[in-house]
Amino acid sequence: MRLSRFHLHTTKETPADAELVSHKLMLRAGMIRKLAAGLYTWSPLGLRVLRKVERIVREEMDRAGAIELQLPTIQPRELWEETGRWEKFGGQLLKIRDRKEAEYCFSPTAEEAITDYARQELSSYKQLPVNFYQIHTKFRDEIRPRFGVMRAREFLMKDAYSFHVNDADLVREYENMKAAYTRIFTRLGLQFRAVQADSGAIGGDASQEFHVLADSGEDAIAFSTGSDYAANVEAAVAAGPGPRPAPAEELRRVQTPTQKTCEEVAALLGIPLSRTVKSVAVIAGDGSFVLALVRGDHAVNEIKLGKVPGVGEYRMAGEAEILEHLGCEPGFLGPLGPRKPVRVVADREVAALADFVIGANEPGFHLTGVNWGRDLPEPDAVADIRNVVEGDRAIDGGRIRLARGIEVGHVFQLGRKYSQAMGFTVLDENGKAVVPTMGCYGIGVSRIVAAAIEQNHDQAGIIWPEPMAPWTVAICVINPKKDPKVDEAAESLLQELKTAGVDAVLDDRGLRPGAMFADIELIGIPHRVVVSERGLAAGTFEYRARRASESEALDRAQLLQHLGVA
Amino acid sequence: MRLSRFHLHTTKETPADAELVSHKLMLRAGMIRKLAAGLYTWSPLGLRVLRKVERIVREEMDRAGAIELQLPTIQPRELWEETGRWEKFGGQLLKIRDRKEAEYCFSPTAEEAITDYARQELSSYKQLPVNFYQIHTKFRDEIRPRFGVMRAREFLMKDAYSFHVNDADLVREYENMKAAYTRIFTRLGLQFRAVQADSGAIGGDASQEFHVLADSGEDAIAFSTGSDYAANVEAAVAAGPGPRPAPAEELRRVQTPTQKTCEEVAALLGIPLSRTVKSVAVIAGDGSFVLALVRGDHAVNEIKLGKVPGVGEYRMAGEAEILEHLGCEPGFLGPLGPRKPVRVVADREVAALADFVIGANEPGFHLTGVNWGRDLPEPDAVADIRNVVEGDRAIDGGRIRLARGIEVGHVFQLGRKYSQAMGFTVLDENGKAVVPTMGCYGIGVSRIVAAAIEQNHDQAGIIWPEPMAPWTVAICVINPKKDPKVDEAAESLLQELKTAGVDAVLDDRGLRPGAMFADIELIGIPHRVVVSERGLAAGTFEYRARRASESEALDRAQLLQHLGVA
Repeated sequence: MRLSRFHLHTTKETPADAELVSHKLMLRAGMIRKLAAGLYTWSPLGLRVLRKVERIVREEMDRAGAIELQLPTIQPRELWEETGRWEKFGGQLLKIRDRKEAEYCFSPTAEEAITDYARQELSSYKQLPVNFYQIHTKFRDEIRPRFGVMRAREFLMKDAYSFHVNDADLVREYENMKAAYTRIFTRLGLQFRAVQADSGAIGGDASQEFHVLADSGEDAIAFSTGSDYAANVEAAVAAGPGPRPAPAEELRRVQTPTQKTCEEVAALLGIPLSRTVKSVAVIAGDGSFVLALVRGDHAVNEIKLGKVPGVGEYRMAGEAEILEHLGCEPGFLGPLGPRKPVRVVADREVAALADFVIGANEPGFHLTGVNWGRDLPEPDAVADIRNVVEGDRAIDGGRIRLARGIEVGHVFQLGRKYSQAMGFTVLDENGKAVVPTMGCYGIGVSRIVAAAIEQNHDQAGIIWPEPMAPWTVAICVINPKKDPKVDEAAESLLQELKTAGVDAVLDDRGLRPGAMFADIELIGIPHRVVVSERGLAAGTFEYRARRASESEALDRAQLLQHLGVA
Repeated sequence: MRLSRFHLHTTKETPADAELVSHKLMLRAGMIRKLAAGLYTWSPLGLRVLRKVERIVREEMDRAGAIELQLPTIQPRELWEETGRWEKFGGQLLKIRDRKEAEYCFSPTAEEAITDYARQELSSYKQLPVNFYQIHTKFRDEIRPRFGVMRAREFLMKDAYSFHVNDADLVREYENMKAAYTRIFTRLGLQFRAVQADSGAIGGDASQEFHVLADSGEDAIAFSTGSDYAANVEAAVAAGPGPRPAPAEELRRVQTPTQKTCEEVAALLGIPLSRTVKSVAVIAGDGSFVLALVRGDHAVNEIKLGKVPGVGEYRMAGEAEILEHLGCEPGFLGPLGPRKPVRVVADREVAALADFVIGANEPGFHLTGVNWGRDLPEPDAVADIRNVVEGDRAIDGGRIRLARGIEVGHVFQLGRKYSQAMGFTVLDENGKAVVPTMGCYGIGVSRIVAAAIEQNHDQAGIIWPEPMAPWTVAICVINPKKDPKVDEAAESLLQELKTAGVDAVLDDRGLRPGAMFADIELIGIPHRVVVSERGLAAGTFEYRARRASESEALDRAQLLQHLGVA
């Protein structure tokens, strides 16, 4: 490819309405252009990157045994009524009336359409398991489309759906897809984590998200240095504490006149924050009063607390309720000597403390040297009810690290939700009609492009991982069409790289070197080779890796070695 | 690929609602499944074919220097208002309101979107010429979707748009695209013609359609045996006649009491139909009475007659008007001795006749031995005003043949219609703002699949041209998993073909031979190889080409030669 025959159109100005660095750089590199809110044209440059991602996704899905097909983007209302999602999907579902007033939607996902296909096609257990996928345009009518293709309304998605006669086989395929996803993101050259997500509202039995790590990511995730364990911060767990030490201090009532927070109390007493205990008063789902205890340096995790038996869907207690049960106003609360009986739920770390500090249930006072069993009855319940923090010991022996991530893939065990609702059955080995169980597996193909930039960029522009780069090598010609030897050397290098399977581009546009190099850096080409009269005279090419700060003068053999060509 | 790991689902029943053979066979082969009216899922089998067509289209567009990008399918009303097509496009434009009540359409074509992209990207003549293309989903809200993917509402189209500073350069690119299209349809292995179409309502300056020849085609086309000349029957021209012979007969008035048609008159007189002349009375655009003359074996071509100077948008004359001008009722009309002056427009073939037959303008009588100059004044105008017929001499010296075609591609010189309406200018060499001229070039990628079947099928099913076949070779295993030698021989053949770049599939489903062969024939695989215990014992494979009626027993070397592997 020669840039003089391509359409490259970069700009120096940073677009005013772009917030994310990937959005800014994609606009500046001319990879995308906005047609309307949340609708982007993929330019020739952008499309090259998108297609490289698409190809890797396709190759690995095929390798994993999934079978590609293509469903219509426009799907009839009747189908979405069968699962109740015509109403339940909400405002993101773009609803359409055709010229005959029949109602349709633009597919934001395709569980209904694939289950309709499956119930036409599959009638016997012999045809299962099967995993159908497509890489196709999707539309979600985001109420506030922004961040460029990171949250566009029209986007490219890989969606796969598997069908199984039993749950064990679904779990097998789910693991197979997780392995395929791991290969995909590894091949793309991205730093990522497969994150355990609380399946929550998805309606499935198990799910995992794949996140590209980037400081600008919307999601906080925790991962371990000891294995590939990773989870949304909300769902992450750390290793439990060691055994509780024996008591060493006496119980004491100390004055803390204005010290209401653990931080203030610890500072006043000159003790570590981790020795203090925070008492959080909540009203459990059954209306009972619960005191949840976490260490002063920890925070209550709402999802975990809600899962403790007898807590359920709780709410924070009001001041009157607190006064009624503990006889004290917030700031000096504690589990010792409540006015009315309260249930005490202690985080595992709190249950493992000795000689700790709690509020005295008396304004202006805390208690120090508190010990379970001696001063206080053992807690009514001990559970993991806190968020993990940076440095926690992980269950695999490693350390917990916190990071931010961009969700680019997810795998779900859907179960029988859709097959049941749509009356899809197959005959099993005994000739009995059974409802197949399903998995679904998505990858945001166009979003990956933006996420890769969030993870890989510098002041000069994008730094593509090689497998996603529009071209792997840029051959920059200084003063093309001046000295034929220069043009010939550049052309010959291009052909040699092409023959070796290296995707190279020749910049023969005749720009001044500074402008040319700025373009090549902005669009993130991993390897830059400069061909000049002066260099040729010395028998060298000027080589520079995108991440390097200096160029090197290399002869042809050295250069080819640097570019991975034998 | 092994069929046991693929999803193949054929049926014997011919679907009730399918009329075209391609629609029937695509359903029976399980290539497509209907989701709703005009909306089809492409099954794994169908998608393999679609992708092969897509790949050839892409490769040839790239080779021709066009640059791929991708425009959104959903496009804002404002853009379509700029060209007036929001209203003018008609009912096929699927209009959509989003959650904020903003209006959009699903792109049925993309002149507006590409011109919007171009006016953001292109500002100088230096960036021109450029030809952008995409291969992307389109939607046309057909009032009566039918014929499967032949006239689906959602379909896959390759659409290209070129921009030029002057008309000569547009013509150059137009010819370049025609050459690319010729390569595409040639590579696909289809019989096709590039047909001159009357550009008519398209609003451009020149256009050509590419038709796949098939008896079921909607369009009648004429082509020459002497060159690649082809045209819609309406637009086709034949070579002009030779010189007019000298008169040999006397003018005679003959009785034709009930003979009103040329056929009846020729039969009565025992002369060739081509010696009779039909007089068609019309009222020209300017209100004057015109007698159009064509040979008895020819038919008036309305478009050509309308283009004769002084005729214009004409209508057929009424009986009263005919009586007023010719003094006779229809059936015996002729150009000799009208009651009032009439303009005579003779087809070229009529002007070249001697001793011909016309109506006498007297009920029950015709005139024979009529000659121009002697009996009649020379015609007021001589022009090509007839439809071509099978066997006509073509302008290239060949013969005209008639056929039916399915339109699968078109190339248009659009001119400045869209660029003008959307205010798109670039600076020319002198720094002056000029409106670029445009070409547009479409290919119905999904329609090609159906058209290929219309052209290539038999009682047993589809007969794919090799480049479009889902697989080129099917290796059919008789009784798989019974004799390991059979499985090994099949697997080894599969691997050898794969290594040689042949796209082969192994049918290891374990069907009975009859059912297996029926499937392989139905889905149109060009080459079938049977691997059986008996064959291996004899050292042979049973080979059969899809179009052949007999199988051959070949040894491995012969087989590989048949399959094009050295």
